[in-house]
Amino acid sequence: MYYSQSAPLAIYAEGEFGKGHSKTAEGVIRYGRNPVVAVIDSTEAGKTVEQAAGVPGNIPIVASVADALQYKPSALLIGVAWTGGRLPEQWRADIKLAIENGLDIINGLHDFLSDDPEIAGLAAARQRRLLDVRRPPEGLPVGAGKARDVPALVCLTVGSDCSVGKMTVSLELTRAAIGRGLRARFIATGQTGIMIDGAGIAIDRVIGDFMAGATERMVVEAGYDHDLIFVEGQGSLIHPGFSGVTLAILHGSCPQAMILCHKANKTTIGDLPFPIPPLSELVPIYEQAARPVRQSRVVGVAINTFGLDEQAARRAIADAGEDTGLPAADPVRFGAGKLLDSVLALRGKAS
Amino acid sequence: MYYSQSAPLAIYAEGEFGKGHSKTAEGVIRYGRNPVVAVIDSTEAGKTVEQAAGVPGNIPIVASVADALQYKPSALLIGVAWTGGRLPEQWRADIKLAIENGLDIINGLHDFLSDDPEIAGLAAARQRRLLDVRRPPEGLPVGAGKARDVPALVCLTVGSDCSVGKMTVSLELTRAAIGRGLRARFIATGQTGIMIDGAGIAIDRVIGDFMAGATERMVVEAGYDHDLIFVEGQGSLIHPGFSGVTLAILHGSCPQAMILCHKANKTTIGDLPFPIPPLSELVPIYEQAARPVRQSRVVGVAINTFGLDEQAARRAIADAGEDTGLPAADPVRFGAGKLLDSVLALRGKAS
Repeated sequence: MYYSQSAPLAIYAEGEFGKGHSKTAEGVIRYGRNPVVAVIDSTEAGKTVEQAAGVPGNIPIVASVADALQYKPSALLIGVAWTGGRLPEQWRADIKLAIENGLDIINGLHDFLSDDPEIAGLAAARQRRLLDVRRPPEGLPVGAGKARDVPALVCLTVGSDCSVGKMTVSLELTRAAIGRGLRARFIATGQTGIMIDGAGIAIDRVIGDFMAGATERMVVEAGYDHDLIFVEGQGSLIHPGFSGVTLAILHGSCPQAMILCHKANKTTIGDLPFPIPPLSELVPIYEQAARPVRQSRVVGVAINTFGLDEQAARRAIADAGEDTGLPAADPVRFGAGKLLDSVLALRGKAS
Repeated sequence: MYYSQSAPLAIYAEGEFGKGHSKTAEGVIRYGRNPVVAVIDSTEAGKTVEQAAGVPGNIPIVASVADALQYKPSALLIGVAWTGGRLPEQWRADIKLAIENGLDIINGLHDFLSDDPEIAGLAAARQRRLLDVRRPPEGLPVGAGKARDVPALVCLTVGSDCSVGKMTVSLELTRAAIGRGLRARFIATGQTGIMIDGAGIAIDRVIGDFMAGATERMVVEAGYDHDLIFVEGQGSLIHPGFSGVTLAILHGSCPQAMILCHKANKTTIGDLPFPIPPLSELVPIYEQAARPVRQSRVVGVAINTFGLDEQAARRAIADAGEDTGLPAADPVRFGAGKLLDSVLALRGKAS
């Protein structure tokens, strides 16, 4: 565990909470083990997280790091992700203020705070910790398909795009499986997942040659004493920027089962001029990409219906089920049981 | 250009020249612009490179760094690649001896010599340069499919496995196209290609999120003042360890044309228990993987027939052509014209 899971956190999401770049903040509030005592975003100050972003809970949003101190956080968690993940200059002053007021910093950006001489020097002087959760461990192996051999059933979430809910679906499936008494484990492959689970490797930050090997190592480590492994997928095989990370995780984790994740009504990749094809075309793209390393089946579709009214949500889910012929659900809104049933139906079958 | 292309080189390939891990050494001898004055491998000392490995030329193989000095090299080039690419401890003494004798070091391993305090300190004291060609540049972008827009025709080599000849085929096609008066450019994506061409980015050493963007940047930089771009592919979409790098290069370079490369009689991936499927099954794997970003066609098959007699070589090529229904050739042995014709047939067609 990279940080005490009872330590109270303040989450920094200046200008972004609930606006599309704050999925780290929202994920940590929704699924993390640490108590979150405040969110910092001057543009939403005075609201609760539920009022600002629909994330359940009464956590207050405050205007500044100074205002958050009254809630006695142990650490400031950088809760905003940017494409490319680099540290905006203007956040520097706020991070320094937090350190000066005795807070550790939990950072998931590509830019490591411990490599920043000014911030690292200040943290050392104040004896505060800088936790760069995206920093990969040393000595990662080259992938060799060893995850095929673990006795656990491995399920990977894959997607039509980034930010459609792959991590969330993996977490909901893990919870549901544990609720049924199964030995289930979530494997984090991105910065938010690591912050939530307290362990994992941010595969998008690993050097190309070792991405599959890093994934493989995590699956092999967990795969002999669990019944079920839910690996958090990243990116999409059809994303022009991130597809390499996606395929490395697919071949590194060797899943028997995949859950295809999609955000209702999203029609293009990221903000790029690339259309998302029908889900029925995405299913064979993933199954064919997996096959040379391990036969794998998409066994369900998870539809992120956030922002739709209930009728529209149920229609979007039904449409996805009809298009693919697969069980479909929004596990956050309506429960993960149906998708978990479909994963478990593979148990005992020859892979 | 990372190094003067008239500087004479000694190539370090201790224990490995011609034995399967020395493709960097052989590639630099065969295609590099710098004169190579000696190869160091005590197990083959006294032979020429042609006698030891079938690489054309009378370059002598010597037993030690000390023996190579008589040929007045300016630099020692590390000519051996290992899986994972880390520096064996025992080479350290030889590298230090070279620096002490006034040589620069050209290194393509994952371990950077300039990050090694002992070697970096010695090089600084002796005013010698350490050229870590695999070190990626700063500030790489996230890929956004921009290589689709360049006017040049882009051709990527893809493969059934690593080390089947993708770089060589790209170089032979570039040479053949220049020979026909076309403005053709080779784009290096690996350490050997960079050593040969004097430019490029080792994509397998780039952080996952930026692999496609790094490839894209190189294609966009060259794509507006060339007719043809030949991008060196890496790995294989069916390799459990390296497939992510392969897909990032495919989506980063947005080729209209692909040449599928294979080594005759190779039946498994690397030294792993994964079978290489028939080439006719690999063709759709690559075309389907490319499609969401850019429609791309495998327009020919390059068969590496090294080690086969002429009759067996011609049979292997004919078999590949028959299996795939595509033009097939060994461009090193029998010329690249046939494959180049097939690439050029795409010019002017809608992509």
